[in-house]
Amino acid sequence: MELIDGKKVSQDIKKEIAEKVKEIIGAGGRRPTLAAILVGHDGGSETYVANKIKACEECGFYSRLIRFENDVTEAELLNAIKELNEDGEVDGFIVQLPLPKHISEQKVIEAIDFRKDVDGFHPINVGRMSIGLPCFRSATPAGIMMLLERYNIPTSGARVVVLGRSNIVGKPVATMLMQKGYPGNATVTVCHSATKDLNAICREADIIIAALGQPAFVTADMVKPGAVIIDVGTTRVPDSSKKSGFRLSGDVDFEKVAPLCSYITPVPGGVGPMTITSLMNNTLLAASKAIYK
Amino acid sequence: MELIDGKKVSQDIKKEIAEKVKEIIGAGGRRPTLAAILVGHDGGSETYVANKIKACEECGFYSRLIRFENDVTEAELLNAIKELNEDGEVDGFIVQLPLPKHISEQKVIEAIDFRKDVDGFHPINVGRMSIGLPCFRSATPAGIMMLLERYNIPTSGARVVVLGRSNIVGKPVATMLMQKGYPGNATVTVCHSATKDLNAICREADIIIAALGQPAFVTADMVKPGAVIIDVGTTRVPDSSKKSGFRLSGDVDFEKVAPLCSYITPVPGGVGPMTITSLMNNTLLAASKAIYK
Repeated sequence: MELIDGKKVSQDIKKEIAEKVKEIIGAGGRRPTLAAILVGHDGGSETYVANKIKACEECGFYSRLIRFENDVTEAELLNAIKELNEDGEVDGFIVQLPLPKHISEQKVIEAIDFRKDVDGFHPINVGRMSIGLPCFRSATPAGIMMLLERYNIPTSGARVVVLGRSNIVGKPVATMLMQKGYPGNATVTVCHSATKDLNAICREADIIIAALGQPAFVTADMVKPGAVIIDVGTTRVPDSSKKSGFRLSGDVDFEKVAPLCSYITPVPGGVGPMTITSLMNNTLLAASKAIYK
Repeated sequence: MELIDGKKVSQDIKKEIAEKVKEIIGAGGRRPTLAAILVGHDGGSETYVANKIKACEECGFYSRLIRFENDVTEAELLNAIKELNEDGEVDGFIVQLPLPKHISEQKVIEAIDFRKDVDGFHPINVGRMSIGLPCFRSATPAGIMMLLERYNIPTSGARVVVLGRSNIVGKPVATMLMQKGYPGNATVTVCHSATKDLNAICREADIIIAALGQPAFVTADMVKPGAVIIDVGTTRVPDSSKKSGFRLSGDVDFEKVAPLCSYITPVPGGVGPMTITSLMNNTLLAASKAIYK
């Protein structure tokens, strides 16, 4: 069993990005800039945004943080998005989700200029990804693809079972893996709450991508010996032995499943760091006009 | 075994659409209008467009046909699209594919205002479909959904195998069937040229959707008794006994497979007529501003 070290891959890629940024600056170019809009003070969101800002520093990007309180109106938020759309010094930006209930997340996502939508959530980017056209790919599935690639995990003709059909992980990673090319060309099955005989379906998988947000859902009896396990789950589970009062749990019963696998991602330190690194990669692509002119 | 009579369902739906058009006109509304751009004189394209115009008549729509010769420039075609985008009397329009090689189909598709894109090929409509938002759904997969619905075929928890990963059938029908709701909630596997053990995978399917364009590809040994077979293939096969010199062949070995099935679509007369009916349905949705304002 080999551990897929997302933390290391993530560091490697950030270093590669930093090198490219040096080249851009050396050639007289402008430093890539990522902006983030953060509404309120949710603990998880604060952490994510802080990590994104830190990653920007590692990559040599400028970052900007625009904060609003929870009582911001939708109109104020849309106005801030409009300003970022029009700001020639901002290459890409994200609006950290979730948003307060009085604001339509979908309206917010669609207000972002798709050419700056480095989260890859805008319907144009989702549609272009599905058709197989150049686009900003959603960060978590793109991060999974990078991990498979860096570890040279064979995917052509592989049976892949995706657990979960979310818009930000399950559906896009399924689409990416069924398309031609590498990583891709896999035979993908998407499972969810209505799936019957889930255990039997999982046992046929060469690669399982678990993205349901249910701690330790994937147990040893669901895994074919030699399978590759990508664990996207990161649920906070109460744990009084930790200073924070919680620990992060993946969707996989790691202790029992790991000995069976050829490769497995740990939680934390697997897919998690790759999500932010993917966002950095999209920001570099935006700054270098590699996708849209 | 019950035959899924796409021709009849298609007639029924067109009658329902015609009733709604009568109501619109009765209420003082404008008659829905579909326009089609046809480049060149390809036999298949001529037939499709003629059938679309005929369907418009059955539904009580106005139709417009804009013809260009094969030597039309991309700029001329894009200009015609711009005019249709801006024409307040045209609710929706299509550009019949394929186009001559000197014209970029993708550029043409993306030039169509997504609010008039009744073929559902624009990335915005593809993306919105994938996310599960209201949109113009691509005609053939939407037609398949209508057939499943009209025949009350259970899909929740069903194992569905989609053969083929095209942008216009395989990928979108897989996405539609995995989403919540009915028809949907299925466990979908997408197979293609790189899939291994295809026969075994197909034999587990409660529903097979064959969309590869390979005559008689699905044979009896690939089908579980009682399965539902949706045959999307329509390949012209030379046949000297026919006046036209060819017959249409589906992707399924109908004679051998049909006795095993609970339901099966014939070719012709199954999915084929539904594609055009779906286009009519999208045109009605466009005219009544049901998707976009």
